[in-house]
Amino acid sequence: MRYFVELSYNGGRYCGWQRQRDAASVQETLERALSTLLREPVEVTGAGRTDTGVHAAYAVAHFDVAAPLTDPEHTAYKLNCLLPDDVAVFGVAPVADDAHARFSAAEREYRYFIESRKNPFTRRAAWHYYRPLDVERMDRAAASLLEYDDFTSFAKLNSNNKTNICRIVRAGWEESPEGVYRFTIRADRFLRNMVRALVGTLVDVGRGRYDVEEFRSIVESRDLSRASGGAPAEGLYLWDVAYPAGVFRRGERTRNLLFN
Amino acid sequence: MRYFVELSYNGGRYCGWQRQRDAASVQETLERALSTLLREPVEVTGAGRTDTGVHAAYAVAHFDVAAPLTDPEHTAYKLNCLLPDDVAVFGVAPVADDAHARFSAAEREYRYFIESRKNPFTRRAAWHYYRPLDVERMDRAAASLLEYDDFTSFAKLNSNNKTNICRIVRAGWEESPEGVYRFTIRADRFLRNMVRALVGTLVDVGRGRYDVEEFRSIVESRDLSRASGGAPAEGLYLWDVAYPAGVFRRGERTRNLLFN
Repeated sequence: MRYFVELSYNGGRYCGWQRQRDAASVQETLERALSTLLREPVEVTGAGRTDTGVHAAYAVAHFDVAAPLTDPEHTAYKLNCLLPDDVAVFGVAPVADDAHARFSAAEREYRYFIESRKNPFTRRAAWHYYRPLDVERMDRAAASLLEYDDFTSFAKLNSNNKTNICRIVRAGWEESPEGVYRFTIRADRFLRNMVRALVGTLVDVGRGRYDVEEFRSIVESRDLSRASGGAPAEGLYLWDVAYPAGVFRRGERTRNLLFN
Repeated sequence: MRYFVELSYNGGRYCGWQRQRDAASVQETLERALSTLLREPVEVTGAGRTDTGVHAAYAVAHFDVAAPLTDPEHTAYKLNCLLPDDVAVFGVAPVADDAHARFSAAEREYRYFIESRKNPFTRRAAWHYYRPLDVERMDRAAASLLEYDDFTSFAKLNSNNKTNICRIVRAGWEESPEGVYRFTIRADRFLRNMVRALVGTLVDVGRGRYDVEEFRSIVESRDLSRASGGAPAEGLYLWDVAYPAGVFRRGERTRNLLFN
């Protein structure tokens, strides 16, 4: 029997999603809680891997168990009691045996938050960057991403990706009245490190180092050395994972409050 | 020359507003930054005292300096550079010599936030309380507070208050779609510990220990032993301090994002 778990986590204390020797990962934390609860060794497969310190407002993972769960909602409740404060499960739901948290996912969305003013309440939940940024120009540069499909410029050297092709369906910057800049990007897939390299380069657009044309030439160059340094992990959130309607339907209560 | 400072702080690391031996206070932190910046010993007087761990989304303090500041906006900017991450200054503005952060204040507002669902991003910014609460009943009990003016039941033993009379102008509970319960209370003054004792007792109304009539009888009893234990500090925020228009007008940018 296969189940999907919907969850969120504060990445601050973790080496990322993926299990690693000698470091706390979200994957291992979730596996340990599930194994304790279900009294059998449980392995989980995540929709995507987040890096050290990166958060997830919404993530999905699947696991298999020998016998069907009698009450998945109660399993979710008990999981939350077993899990630490920084990992929260929204729900546990049965899926078809061939539903796969990673391979069945049709789209993923990431958001990145920059605080432009000092805020004592979001120190580890956003990148605090107090120099002026031209958000309108960053937004124009971001919008141009929809015209491209090869993101080699924002890939990581020696990654295992067979291709650097991503179909981006949404990319843009918005500014809230409280001075929070929000970057939203949605695509069928993302390369490792891609969102942070994009944000770092777009911030260089915003602070005047590049204009929109230069940004486009960086994308077009397919040259890993031209992107700017990656933006800090604490501002990045895996925000959504979407599946075809026949595979999995997102639960009703899957939003924590903080930014939006 | 007298100035008002508008600020916010995350109370998590502080023994509260007021200076204490051997513990970090917000008052001392602010005084130290001002004294360094202005190169003279500066003392600040706050609009109110928050207890250990209590936050301020908006607070006001006044200080005096020998010579007028040439550019108060620049002073605010430099103060933010000197202050730690968990204290943020919104602005510094000149006021009349007899304007007093505490005694001139006409109204104060506090808010208290309860997270009813597990949220990895607000662990120290709200009280996480996962048992069912009847918010509508809590709101009715809160609304009844406007009919009273003696809050001895929610005062602290041996406090220095001459009277326990407060004029409450607003009190109520609201629930957000994300399952955050917000208590708002506004009055001309508050007794020490009063808001947390009120919230603790109102939560006892919400979980069925008291009905609204019993809550009213607790208020009417003026008996310190009848209020429930105080709600935890991490959910409480000093939210507003209001002055007569002739004394001080709140700055334009005085809101950080987190809850609202």
